[in-house]
Amino acid sequence: MSFDILQKKIIEKRNPTIAGLDARVEYVPPHILKESIARYGETLQAGAEAIYTFNCGLIDALCDVVPAVKPQSAYYENLGWRGMELLERTIQYAKSKGLYVVADIKRGDIGTTATAYSEAWLGRSVVGSTALPVFDADCVTLNGYMGADAIRPFLKDCERYDKCVIVLVRTSNQSAVELQDKLCGEKHIYEVMGELTQDWAGDSVGAYGYSRIGAVTGATYPEQIKTLRAQLPHTFFLVPGYGAQGGTAEDVQYAFDARGCGAIVNSSRGIMCAWQKTGKDGLDYQEAARAAAIAMREDICRFVNFA
Amino acid sequence: MSFDILQKKIIEKRNPTIAGLDARVEYVPPHILKESIARYGETLQAGAEAIYTFNCGLIDALCDVVPAVKPQSAYYENLGWRGMELLERTIQYAKSKGLYVVADIKRGDIGTTATAYSEAWLGRSVVGSTALPVFDADCVTLNGYMGADAIRPFLKDCERYDKCVIVLVRTSNQSAVELQDKLCGEKHIYEVMGELTQDWAGDSVGAYGYSRIGAVTGATYPEQIKTLRAQLPHTFFLVPGYGAQGGTAEDVQYAFDARGCGAIVNSSRGIMCAWQKTGKDGLDYQEAARAAAIAMREDICRFVNFA
Repeated sequence: MSFDILQKKIIEKRNPTIAGLDARVEYVPPHILKESIARYGETLQAGAEAIYTFNCGLIDALCDVVPAVKPQSAYYENLGWRGMELLERTIQYAKSKGLYVVADIKRGDIGTTATAYSEAWLGRSVVGSTALPVFDADCVTLNGYMGADAIRPFLKDCERYDKCVIVLVRTSNQSAVELQDKLCGEKHIYEVMGELTQDWAGDSVGAYGYSRIGAVTGATYPEQIKTLRAQLPHTFFLVPGYGAQGGTAEDVQYAFDARGCGAIVNSSRGIMCAWQKTGKDGLDYQEAARAAAIAMREDICRFVNFA
Repeated sequence: MSFDILQKKIIEKRNPTIAGLDARVEYVPPHILKESIARYGETLQAGAEAIYTFNCGLIDALCDVVPAVKPQSAYYENLGWRGMELLERTIQYAKSKGLYVVADIKRGDIGTTATAYSEAWLGRSVVGSTALPVFDADCVTLNGYMGADAIRPFLKDCERYDKCVIVLVRTSNQSAVELQDKLCGEKHIYEVMGELTQDWAGDSVGAYGYSRIGAVTGATYPEQIKTLRAQLPHTFFLVPGYGAQGGTAEDVQYAFDARGCGAIVNSSRGIMCAWQKTGKDGLDYQEAARAAAIAMREDICRFVNFA
């Protein structure tokens, strides 16, 4: 029906944070990369295998702390098909450890093209008479610039396989203002997008009051989160921008409802690259990531009370 | 500097059209798919190999007629990493036949994520001390909803490797109106996006007067193409929506400048699936695609005069 699966995991772990798996080759601890290059040379395969080892180590270290992970497709496409194969394996491994997987793909295309994306990321692809899962994430991020045509084709697979989508509404980056903050009559473009998101979702909501279509609302603009939370009571929020981009726990608190539900806050480099700050050359990358994830949980939970 | 490479190919072939390579498994002629399934079973690999055979056949049949092809990433992701591997091979094959390749990926993300996409699609990925080409297309489509942060990181690779990008401005689909046609003061959102596109490109233009950042302007809204052509004199246009979506040669003529330059018109299913209308079960898919591409060229060139 909705974001219930994710919300339950958040409450179980009392942790509304999602760990990004945005593995650039240079984020991989040197000992892992070195071993992979020794084996495969300086190739895309070496990059992919190193990142897979790193990802699995991170997932092992985080899976009892965080409810969800968010691999960013760019970092996998960056290594070509070998990166995509590594992404398939990463998603499967994360799911096997009980984590909810949001594939951060920000796709936005229409009609049969949107259907093809939906089959790839949430549904099944058909060859002959066989329907085959492909990346099979639990949720994807989407871009709604092209309107409903870019979102609706995903809703069929959402219904069929109990999945969700999250649409970019107000992003956390500096140049978001160039388009998203322009006024359309009385409303900012991001508010127009927020309302469209709600319209596309229709009336059906899950046990926690949220529909199947969430929204990205950046942590760096707390006033806007507050406005959007009030305008979109049934829209689950994915909140990027905490930490590295300057968003604080105080800022993100407005994304949550009174019961502490309705939002999840992302951290990518803050957790993944925590090893770069401990002076141990990444040998402690698992402990460092786990400690960073726990610190983030404690920080955010100062402002979020699970009823 | 710009779209010169593509514009030259267009003029050489006297054909401002680009053939989509949007191969869903069901678009593959039955004899090709059957053979692939006989070999690999009903698997993603069978789908990928069938599409690769189909794509190569199309490229062979079209490479002296059209200047460019446009693979749509959705249809390759649809088959997982095997589809992405097929996409890498397809891009290489098309380039080996002298075709300009626009990867229709419509990505839109920021900062290091945008850099990762740019490396993947236009530039090089670095493993150890080796810079490796990945998908290595000539041009990609992008989504500018997040502002300059989503576009600028690509411009470095554009400079370094003489590549281009094309940003969604006014798309050809029905629900484009939901956001793109809303008014911001005196201007529609698509006009605001068009102006941003021009700003991001800066002042440098190539021999034909066009910058490195193009715009998608749908054929289904000729009045808007006319407006945008006047507003954006240095922006190269990619025009989808001809044929299947209802755009005609008369509609698309406004995308071109007085010398017949500055635009390219897409057709995907009209060419790729032409075999479905000849009653020969796809055995003639190459002849059918070639005939459709020539008919499209003749149709559009009724209104476009190359100076």
